[in-house]
Amino acid sequence: MNLRAEALKIMEAALAAVQPEAAVRQALKDLRPQPDGKLLLLAVGKAAWKMARAAQAELPARISSGLVLTKYGYRFGPLPGLTCLEAGHPVPDAQSCAATEQALHLVQNLSGRDTVLFLLSGGGSALLEKPLVSLAELQDITQQLLNCGASIREINTIRKRLSAVKGGRLALACAPAHIFTVVLSDIPGDPLDMIASGPAYPDSSTCAQAVGIAQKYHLQLSAAAWDLLRRETPKTLANVETHVTGNVQLLAAAAATACARLGYQPRILTTTLEEEAQAAGRQLAVLAREQSACLQNQAFICGGETVVKVTGTGKGGRNQELALSAAAGLAGLRDAAIFSFSSDGTDGPTDAAGGFVDGNTAASLRQAGLDPALSLRNHDSYHALKKIGALLHTGPTGTNVNDLSILLLKKSAQTESCCRCHN
Amino acid sequence: MNLRAEALKIMEAALAAVQPEAAVRQALKDLRPQPDGKLLLLAVGKAAWKMARAAQAELPARISSGLVLTKYGYRFGPLPGLTCLEAGHPVPDAQSCAATEQALHLVQNLSGRDTVLFLLSGGGSALLEKPLVSLAELQDITQQLLNCGASIREINTIRKRLSAVKGGRLALACAPAHIFTVVLSDIPGDPLDMIASGPAYPDSSTCAQAVGIAQKYHLQLSAAAWDLLRRETPKTLANVETHVTGNVQLLAAAAATACARLGYQPRILTTTLEEEAQAAGRQLAVLAREQSACLQNQAFICGGETVVKVTGTGKGGRNQELALSAAAGLAGLRDAAIFSFSSDGTDGPTDAAGGFVDGNTAASLRQAGLDPALSLRNHDSYHALKKIGALLHTGPTGTNVNDLSILLLKKSAQTESCCRCHN
Repeated sequence: MNLRAEALKIMEAALAAVQPEAAVRQALKDLRPQPDGKLLLLAVGKAAWKMARAAQAELPARISSGLVLTKYGYRFGPLPGLTCLEAGHPVPDAQSCAATEQALHLVQNLSGRDTVLFLLSGGGSALLEKPLVSLAELQDITQQLLNCGASIREINTIRKRLSAVKGGRLALACAPAHIFTVVLSDIPGDPLDMIASGPAYPDSSTCAQAVGIAQKYHLQLSAAAWDLLRRETPKTLANVETHVTGNVQLLAAAAATACARLGYQPRILTTTLEEEAQAAGRQLAVLAREQSACLQNQAFICGGETVVKVTGTGKGGRNQELALSAAAGLAGLRDAAIFSFSSDGTDGPTDAAGGFVDGNTAASLRQAGLDPALSLRNHDSYHALKKIGALLHTGPTGTNVNDLSILLLKKSAQTESCCRCHN
Repeated sequence: MNLRAEALKIMEAALAAVQPEAAVRQALKDLRPQPDGKLLLLAVGKAAWKMARAAQAELPARISSGLVLTKYGYRFGPLPGLTCLEAGHPVPDAQSCAATEQALHLVQNLSGRDTVLFLLSGGGSALLEKPLVSLAELQDITQQLLNCGASIREINTIRKRLSAVKGGRLALACAPAHIFTVVLSDIPGDPLDMIASGPAYPDSSTCAQAVGIAQKYHLQLSAAAWDLLRRETPKTLANVETHVTGNVQLLAAAAATACARLGYQPRILTTTLEEEAQAAGRQLAVLAREQSACLQNQAFICGGETVVKVTGTGKGGRNQELALSAAAGLAGLRDAAIFSFSSDGTDGPTDAAGGFVDGNTAASLRQAGLDPALSLRNHDSYHALKKIGALLHTGPTGTNVNDLSILLLKKSAQTESCCRCHN
């Protein structure tokens, strides 16, 4: 099997391990709704549809009504008895706001005997939104944050304060009903108040941090927005119970198993990769060269979510940019490959999940008339990788637990003219 | 759940992933015996019984006869149509030699249309033996090698040359029959000529290496043994086909999954741990202190097989010694634990699989009147850990793919008086 075929196999096995169904079923074993109370379902995020379907299968005829809110293209069909809506991501749109009003309508006037089953996954920050500034300003601020290289924690610290449903405020809207939250985590370390900006979790971030982030990235904000950054979010919530069911740790461990089955020695280097995408790509390529004379097949696995500070006019995503950045360092290396993909199947605003590069990629790009360095400067990884068939495609996966970046090295890996190899 | 309960859960999940049955079934899909030839079964090693049972279930009524040779206590019942024998390990005994004669009888006078299904797992070096020196001298040399701190590769390089069935020589005895080998690997990196001393695999080690090892460890050898070290083993074998089905990589990846399910960020640091057991234990404890102020639950996983150079009169094993060595470094650390276990369930010549230590272990030992440093000097980890209930027991597991050593750290982990922690 060649390296690309192996990469596809590893990607497939890892994604299979973080599909939401089994995880939701497991979490629901702890759900004890009041027998005389209503049980409502609210599923939000990129994995909302699959999570909702799993809950319906597990609790037949128990859910009185519910709403599923996911990204455009992530609704895989109707779910009987549930309203399924789609909205914008990563920048919220009018559909996000309209759907959120429906969600708030669903949970109003509940009693203390009622339960909201809240199935939350990444992407919820854009999908579930009732902005406290105008939608146009919120969209602008979101785009500023996405482009400036801010981490997802920083982005969500700002988002929480500009919203009537984030940072625990949805839980206040549901009170006095009980909220049973099942979370598929897409942020390294599973910070429950950050995933989808924590609609039903006490907020650990502070106004001071929010103001600091706005200053650090020179965000352009209206006076109203500045005021909102200084309005504190709830720090305690009495009516919430939260279960984490899937995360990038499981994704990385499943990849390790798949690598082992293919004869690689797997190492999980980290599950909290948060650095800049191009730097991460270059570092993996350096590791490839350092280890290229290894006596065993080796797989180095990194989970997490890199960041990209968009400055050019190109098209791409974190994973494609990481892969493309590694191509130069891999050039000429035999039997080595680096691939990186988003578990939700969408890397940035593209139809690709990520990219795959090996020792031939740099030469292929040049033969195709492309300058890899220029593509990287323009953050145009998508077009560069697409032209040489180096994109990875999965379509919407129905799950969302962060990214994986993997270096595969065969024991025969060596450069054709390299003085840095060991013996 | 406390740390010991979590450790037991991780151990159980990891061991379940490397049970031989599924792996054997998978490998046998590639087996194509000649329809008009005999199919004989020869299973040797600590996992022989389970591997043979799986093959029987997969190939009902096809195996004409066979022999299962495993360690004392590792035969879990009769297997219809197969002879099941037990013998000595890690030092071969008269039973090893008698059983090996039966195995050689089984495979003699075969034709080129016959197939030997050879199910091999770790422990085979001691179990399958027809010594070219006296059994007494072989036992003495084996014991010298086990006590001097030699690695398993070094030990087997010597063993191969003192044996009529190791280093590919069993394959010669089966010729012209085809040998289809299924290997459960117990040596990091799966060196096929080293696992069970490679009875049916071309030998990559050389006479010069064997002589070098004998000199390095000042082995006491007869003149006949010295002569044998200089007699070369087969470097090519035309009649063998080999499939690796399970190894420490899979064990480590399964542990990573179990850790992720328990909320830990797993890192696989290595799957080729080969250093001295006490040094490895001390290093894991250092890592625990360095990472003790982490903001997330973390699990650091090492697979491999450490070495112990026995000098005292105590009782213990690699894993118990590693764990006991970590106790001093962990002392006073809250919410941190280190445990280490052998996947076959037998750590050294003891009834324990390994040991578990945490921040209280050192104090418990002193309260019990034991000096941990003295126990380590005497290589008496078994009695020390036993006295305070810190042994891990599994009984014979029916598999054998090396050891795992794991550091678990809860995010609250911190010393009560430690100036080395971060914030």
